[in-house]
Amino acid sequence: MPIKLHKKLLLTGAAGGLGMVLRTRLKANCSLLRLSDRVAFGAAEADEEIMLADLADAAAVDSIVAGVDAIIHMGGVSVEGPFAPIMQANILGVVNLYEAARKHGVNRVIFASSNHVTGFYRQDQTITADHAPRPDGFYALSKAFGENLSRLYFDRYGIETACVRIGSSFAEPLDRRMLATWLSFDDLHRLITACLTTPVLGHSIVFGMSHNAVTWWDNAKARHIGYVPLDSSDIFRDAVYAKTQMPDASDPATVYQGGGFVKAGPF
Amino acid sequence: MPIKLHKKLLLTGAAGGLGMVLRTRLKANCSLLRLSDRVAFGAAEADEEIMLADLADAAAVDSIVAGVDAIIHMGGVSVEGPFAPIMQANILGVVNLYEAARKHGVNRVIFASSNHVTGFYRQDQTITADHAPRPDGFYALSKAFGENLSRLYFDRYGIETACVRIGSSFAEPLDRRMLATWLSFDDLHRLITACLTTPVLGHSIVFGMSHNAVTWWDNAKARHIGYVPLDSSDIFRDAVYAKTQMPDASDPATVYQGGGFVKAGPF
Amino acid sequence: MPIKLHKKLLLTGAAGGLGMVLRTRLKANCSLLRLSDRVAFGAAEADEEIMLADLADAAAVDSIVAGVDAIIHMGGVSVEGPFAPIMQANILGVVNLYEAARKHGVNRVIFASSNHVTGFYRQDQTITADHAPRPDGFYALSKAFGENLSRLYFDRYGIETACVRIGSSFAEPLDRRMLATWLSFDDLHRLITACLTTPVLGHSIVFGMSHNAVTWWDNAKARHIGYVPLDSSDIFRDAVYAKTQMPDASDPATVYQGGGFVKAGPF
Amino acid sequence: MPIKLHKKLLLTGAAGGLGMVLRTRLKANCSLLRLSDRVAFGAAEADEEIMLADLADAAAVDSIVAGVDAIIHMGGVSVEGPFAPIMQANILGVVNLYEAARKHGVNRVIFASSNHVTGFYRQDQTITADHAPRPDGFYALSKAFGENLSRLYFDRYGIETACVRIGSSFAEPLDRRMLATWLSFDDLHRLITACLTTPVLGHSIVFGMSHNAVTWWDNAKARHIGYVPLDSSDIFRDAVYAKTQMPDASDPATVYQGGGFVKAGPF
Amino acid sequence: MPIKLHKKLLLTGAAGGLGMVLRTRLKANCSLLRLSDRVAFGAAEADEEIMLADLADAAAVDSIVAGVDAIIHMGGVSVEGPFAPIMQANILGVVNLYEAARKHGVNRVIFASSNHVTGFYRQDQTITADHAPRPDGFYALSKAFGENLSRLYFDRYGIETACVRIGSSFAEPLDRRMLATWLSFDDLHRLITACLTTPVLGHSIVFGMSHNAVTWWDNAKARHIGYVPLDSSDIFRDAVYAKTQMPDASDPATVYQGGGFVKAGPF
Amino acid sequence: MPIKLHKKLLLTGAAGGLGMVLRTRLKANCSLLRLSDRVAFGAAEADEEIMLADLADAAAVDSIVAGVDAIIHMGGVSVEGPFAPIMQANILGVVNLYEAARKHGVNRVIFASSNHVTGFYRQDQTITADHAPRPDGFYALSKAFGENLSRLYFDRYGIETACVRIGSSFAEPLDRRMLATWLSFDDLHRLITACLTTPVLGHSIVFGMSHNAVTWWDNAKARHIGYVPLDSSDIFRDAVYAKTQMPDASDPATVYQGGGFVKAGPF
Repeated sequence: MPIKLHKKLLLTGAAGGLGMVLRTRLKANCSLLRLSDRVAFGAAEADEEIMLADLADAAAVDSIVAGVDAIIHMGGVSVEGPFAPIMQANILGVVNLYEAARKHGVNRVIFASSNHVTGFYRQDQTITADHAPRPDGFYALSKAFGENLSRLYFDRYGIETACVRIGSSFAEPLDRRMLATWLSFDDLHRLITACLTTPVLGHSIVFGMSHNAVTWWDNAKARHIGYVPLDSSDIFRDAVYAKTQMPDASDPATVYQGGGFVKAGPF
Repeated sequence: MPIKLHKKLLLTGAAGGLGMVLRTRLKANCSLLRLSDRVAFGAAEADEEIMLADLADAAAVDSIVAGVDAIIHMGGVSVEGPFAPIMQANILGVVNLYEAARKHGVNRVIFASSNHVTGFYRQDQTITADHAPRPDGFYALSKAFGENLSRLYFDRYGIETACVRIGSSFAEPLDRRMLATWLSFDDLHRLITACLTTPVLGHSIVFGMSHNAVTWWDNAKARHIGYVPLDSSDIFRDAVYAKTQMPDASDPATVYQGGGFVKAGPF
Repeated sequence: MPIKLHKKLLLTGAAGGLGMVLRTRLKANCSLLRLSDRVAFGAAEADEEIMLADLADAAAVDSIVAGVDAIIHMGGVSVEGPFAPIMQANILGVVNLYEAARKHGVNRVIFASSNHVTGFYRQDQTITADHAPRPDGFYALSKAFGENLSRLYFDRYGIETACVRIGSSFAEPLDRRMLATWLSFDDLHRLITACLTTPVLGHSIVFGMSHNAVTWWDNAKARHIGYVPLDSSDIFRDAVYAKTQMPDASDPATVYQGGGFVKAGPF
Repeated sequence: MPIKLHKKLLLTGAAGGLGMVLRTRLKANCSLLRLSDRVAFGAAEADEEIMLADLADAAAVDSIVAGVDAIIHMGGVSVEGPFAPIMQANILGVVNLYEAARKHGVNRVIFASSNHVTGFYRQDQTITADHAPRPDGFYALSKAFGENLSRLYFDRYGIETACVRIGSSFAEPLDRRMLATWLSFDDLHRLITACLTTPVLGHSIVFGMSHNAVTWWDNAKARHIGYVPLDSSDIFRDAVYAKTQMPDASDPATVYQGGGFVKAGPF
Repeated sequence: MPIKLHKKLLLTGAAGGLGMVLRTRLKANCSLLRLSDRVAFGAAEADEEIMLADLADAAAVDSIVAGVDAIIHMGGVSVEGPFAPIMQANILGVVNLYEAARKHGVNRVIFASSNHVTGFYRQDQTITADHAPRPDGFYALSKAFGENLSRLYFDRYGIETACVRIGSSFAEPLDRRMLATWLSFDDLHRLITACLTTPVLGHSIVFGMSHNAVTWWDNAKARHIGYVPLDSSDIFRDAVYAKTQMPDASDPATVYQGGGFVKAGPF
Repeated sequence: MPIKLHKKLLLTGAAGGLGMVLRTRLKANCSLLRLSDRVAFGAAEADEEIMLADLADAAAVDSIVAGVDAIIHMGGVSVEGPFAPIMQANILGVVNLYEAARKHGVNRVIFASSNHVTGFYRQDQTITADHAPRPDGFYALSKAFGENLSRLYFDRYGIETACVRIGSSFAEPLDRRMLATWLSFDDLHRLITACLTTPVLGHSIVFGMSHNAVTWWDNAKARHIGYVPLDSSDIFRDAVYAKTQMPDASDPATVYQGGGFVKAGPF
C-alpha cells in the first residue's frame, strides 16, 4: 500500500504502454496526478489533470512541470530507431525537463532509464551501478545522456533523481531473456513508490527488475531506496521454456544483455 | 533458541538500556551471567552474579573479567557529549577491558560499537565494513578507537572480537531514519548469540540492524557469523510516516547516516 | 521440477558417492543418461547407458564424450592423497575430457571443482569467484588446474563451463564446519540443472552450497545461472552442536576453510 | 620523433586553438593531412588538403571522412554555453562522424574529450578512467555523450577510439588549477601520436596532462597506449604562485576539478 | 625552493628530533615560525617565537594556536610505551589542538601520523590510504585516533588535514627495514611544503617516504598534494646490507611492516 | 651491482636460452652456483658445479636441491606443445622441486612463470597480479599450476616464491608486441637479484618486463621486491616499426596479450 506523500505528481509519457500502467496505480501516491504526453489521449478522470507537451518544446515542458512536487518521467522515444527523433525527445527533451525542474524548484525526479544503457555487457556478467555504460544503440545513448544530465543537476542544484534502468516491463515474460529482465507492473509501481518516499534519494541508479532467479544486475548500491520486489518471473519459467527454443549461442542477441537491440539498425 | 555454549559470560553496562534488554535474554546462553555496571543497580537473580566496576579503573575491570569465558561489552558512555568522560569510560575503559582479557585468557569479545563510527556517510550510500570510519562526534571517535584496539588485540594476541555497529535498538522505530537503522531487541540478541557461537569469529565488523527494507549497510563481510535477522522495521513504516514530516533535505541530520549526531555539540 | 532440455547427458564418476546421488536425479534432465566410471558398477537401467573409461586414457574418454549434448564431470580422485594418481585422473583426465569435447562439439560442461581450491582462506573471510586460488593440497591443485583449463577452452573454443566448487555434499552436515559448507543432494541437483538450462553459462565459478546461515562464500558473480538453493543446514544446527566440541581455535583445521585438508599429508 | 604510419589523416576543428597547434605537428605523422573546419580558414599548404564541413551536416561530414586512415576529432564547441549549438555540433556532430567512419571503414579515431566530463569530482580526489562521469555542464555532457557513442561503435563495429580528456592545453599554465591540468602542446602531440601508433588501441579513456607534480588523474588504464609526457607544469610553478592568490576554499571553482565551469551558466 | 605562502606557522614538538629538523627548514615557508613544546628548549631566533604548552592542557593549546595560519603538529609521544601518557598527549592533546583550530579558524593542519597505524600488515603487501588501520600498539592507536579526529573536523568544519604517516625519518637508514621506510629530512620538508601549498588539501592520508626502491606503500590517493621525493635509500643499500644480517623470517618484527613495534611491550 | 647474500644457489634449466644468460650473471650473487639441466651441457667453470636431473625424476630433483640456499627455477618446457611432455617437466617437475625444497628446508624460490598465464587478456587491458589467470595454452596452464603450487607451499610451509611472469626476454625486441613485453637480460638479472635479496618476499607474482613505454602490466603489488628496471624497449621502437607491418587488428594474435600463442596448436 503506497504512502500518499505528494500533492501533485507529473507523469510524462502517460499515453504510452507503461504510462497507462502507471496512470491508475500512481493515483494512490498523490492527491492529483498530472498526465502529459505529446498528443491528445482522452479525458482526465477523477484526481487527474491532463497537459499536453512535446518534450522538445521548452516552453511546453516548463508549463507541465510548474506546480508539481515530483516527476515520473516516462516520456520520449522508448525503442531503437533513427537518431534525429531520439535526439529531440530524449536528449533535448530531458534538458528541457530538468531546466524546468530547476526553475520551478522540483527536487525529485524518477527517470525512466533503460537496461540498454549497459546492453553490451554479456549475459554471464553481473553488473552494478558502478559499471561504465556500454550502450547498445541510439536509444541507449540517449538514456545514458539522461543519466549524466541528472547527475549534473544533482551535483549542481541538488535535484534528486532515481535513474530506473527498466528491464522488460510487460504483463509477463515473453522469452527466455525476459526471465532475467522481467519487471512486473506492480513491481514497477513499488519501485517508483520507494523512490518517491525514501527520505534521501540522492542520485541513484537502480535496475528495474522483479525478484527473478536468473539475473545480471545487482542493486546493492540502491539499498537506501528500500525497493522490495514481490513478483518473480519464475512462475512463468516452464511455460516460456516450452514455447521457445534454446537460443543460438553464436548470436549477439543471445550473448549480450541488450538482446535484439545489440543488432538493431543501423538506420 | 540460543545454544548454551558458555559457562560464564560477562555483560558490562548491565544497568543501561540495552543492558537490561540483554540481561534476561543472555541467561539462555550461559550457566552464569555476570552483570557489571558502574553503580549499584539491584540484586542478582538466579544464575546471575553482580560485580560493580568503573571502566576507567583498571583493577576493577580486571576483577570483573577474571574467570569468564566471553564478554559482551555494552558499558561506557553511549551518547554524544563532552570528551573527558567519553575518554575515561570508552577509551581508557576499553584499554582496561582488553588488557584484562589478555591477562585472563578471555578470547572472545562482543563489543558494542556504533553506526556513528560511519555517521558522516550519506544516507544514499551503501557502506560495508571496508569503508573507512567517518565518525560523527566524540562518542563515535571513541567507538572507532575501540574497533582499532580490538584489531590490535586480535593481530597480536588472537583475541576475537565482533564490533557490532548497533543502529537504533529500541522497542520500535521512532522516526523515518530509524526505519533504516532499527535493530529489534530480539535481533540484537540473535546477533550476539551468533557471535558467541560461530566457530571462527576473527576480528569482525558487523552492522547491527534488523531486516529492514531501507538500509545503508551491507553485512556481506560478516557472513561467517551466521546472523539471520527475523524482525523488520517495515511493519512500523506506515505508522512512522503518519506521525512524522518529510525531513528537510538541506538539514545535515537528514543527509547523513548519523542523523542528529552530526550536528550535536560542540560541548 | 527440472526442465528436460537435453537428449543425451554424460555423467562421469557415476559410481562415486555423488555420482550415485545424481544418477537417479539427472534422468529428469534428459532422454538418455550416459553413465561412466573407471570400473564396472552394474547394469544400465531404463533411459541409461553405461560406458566405462579410465580418464587418463584419451581414446576411452573420446568414446564416452562422442554424441552427448553436455557433460556433468564428477569423475576422478575426490580426496587428498599422493600426487601421481591425482595427476593421471584429474589433470591428464580433464585435458582428455576437454579435448574430446572440443573434437565432438560438446559446448557445455559442469565441472565438479571443490571448495578446497580456496581452502587456505580463513573461515572469517568471505570469498567470491574473484579471489585468487589458495589450494590446500594436491587434490585442490588439480581442481584449480581444471578450472584454468576450462577457462582456456572457453576463451579459445567457446566451450561453456560451470566450475562448481562443491562444499560438503552429504545427506546431512556431520560437524560444525559442514554447517557452513553443506550442500544438500537436492540442491546439488538444482544447481546442476540451473547450469544446464541457463541460456548463457559462459565460464562461471559457482560455490556449491545450500542456503546456510553461516557461510564463507558469495555467489554474486553467478547470478546469471539462476541457482536458488531450497535446503539449509540450519535445521541440523542444534544436533551438530550437541554432538561436537567447540573446535580448537589454534588448529589450522579450525581456522582455514579447507578444514582437515589443510593439514592432510604430505604423502 | 613521431612515426609516419598513415597516408591520410583527418583533423577536424583545424582552425581552432588546438587545431592550429596540431596542424603543423601532425604533418610528421602522415603523408597528407586533411584539415577541416566549419568556415574557411585559409589555403592548404604543402602536404595538406582543406575540406570544410559543418559537423551537424551528415553529408558534409561523410565527405571529409571518406578516404582517410584515421581521424583526430578536435572539432565542435569547446566551451560551456547554451545547449542548442552544443547539441548540434557535439552530439549530432559526433553521431555524423562515427556513422561516416563506419560507412568508410575508418577504424581509429582520436576524440577530443574533456576533463570536464569528470568536473564535479573534488580536487583532492584521484580519478581513473573507471570513475563514473560527473559532468560539470552542457559542454561536458556532450563530451560524455561522445565517449559513450565511441564505446558503442567499438563494441558493435570494432572502431577503436581514444577519448582524450584534455586538461588545459595552453602555451603555459595560467593559474594554480592549471598547474594540475596543464597539457603542453608537444605532449598533446605526443599523446595523439601514441594513440595513432599503438598496435591495439581498443576503446580507451586517457587523461591529457603533462608530467605535473600535482595531479588528480591516473592513467594506469591507458598504459597500452605508451604515452610518455616529457613536459611539466612544475617549471612554471613559482611564477604562477607569484601572480595568483591562494584560492577561496569555499568557492566551488576551487573545490571541484572543473574549476570555473562548475558554476558557469545557466544560459 | 619552498614557496612562502604563510605569515605565521605553528610547529608543535619543536624540541623533538624531527621538530629540530623542521625548525630550520620551515622558516622558508613563513614570515614567522611559532615553535612550541612541553618544556623550555632555548631562545627564539630570528623570525621565530616560542610558546610552551602541554598538549593535555586545553587552555595552553588554545593559546599557541591563536593567530597562526596553519599548524604542523609534530608534538606528543612518538614511541611505544604505557597507555596513560600516550592518552594524555596524543589523544586528549589532539582533541585540544583541533578544538583550538576550530575556535580560531585555522583551516589547515599537517598531522604527524605514523606508519605504525598500519604496522600489522605484512612486508610483502602494498598498502594504500584505503586499507583499514591495523595498529601495532598504543602509540599507533593514538595516531589512528588523530586520523579519525581530523576526518571529523574536516567533515564537520572543513578543516583540512594531511595525515602524514611518517616512515623512518633519520639522517640515513639504519637497518634493512628502513631501506623501505626511510624518509630523508629534506623529503619530509618537501612533503610538508607540498601539503601547505597545494590549493585543495582536503582530508588526506599520505605515506611519508622517500623514493626508495623497496616500498610497501602507494601514495596514489595523494597525488593532489604534489609531493615529489628527491632522495632515496638506495644509495645506502650496500652499506646497510654489509653491516646487518638477513633477518629471521620467523620473527614478527621481520614479517610485519611495523618492525619491532609489533612486539614491543606490553607495559 | 648485486649483493652476494647466498652461499649456494641452484639454477635449473641452465642450458636453456635464459639459463645461459643467467649462468654468468648469477655468479655475482653467490659463492657457488649449482647448474642443472636435463642432459649434459659441458663442464663447470670456476665457482660452479653441475648436477644433471630430469625434473620428472623425484630422486634426481631431490639431489640437486639438497644443500642450496635458494633456487632459480628456469627449467622445463618453455614453449607451447603437446601436453604430455609439459605435464612431465612442468607439472610433475615442479611438484618434485617443491617437495625437495620442503624436505631440505630451502625457503626461497624464483619460479620462471610466463606472461602466457594471462595471455587471453586483450592488449588494451592493464593487468595486475590480482587478475585471474587466462592461460593461452598447455604451456601457460602448466605455469599457472606452478604458481598455485608455490602458493600452497607458502601457505602451508612458509616457502617464499616469486612467480616471475617473464615477458619476452631476448637480446632485443623482435616485433611490435615485444615492444610491450620485452625484458632485457640485465633487467631479468636485476629482477632475480631483487627477489633474492628483499627481506620479505612472501608469495609474489611479478611481471618480468623492462621499463617500456607501452605495457599491459602493473607491478604495483610487487613493490616490496624493489625491482627497478633500467632498460627500455623504446630505443628499439623506430627500428621495429620500420621492419614490421601494422598488425592485422582482426587477428587474435594481435588482439590478445599472448600473441601467437593464443592460436598455436592444438597438437
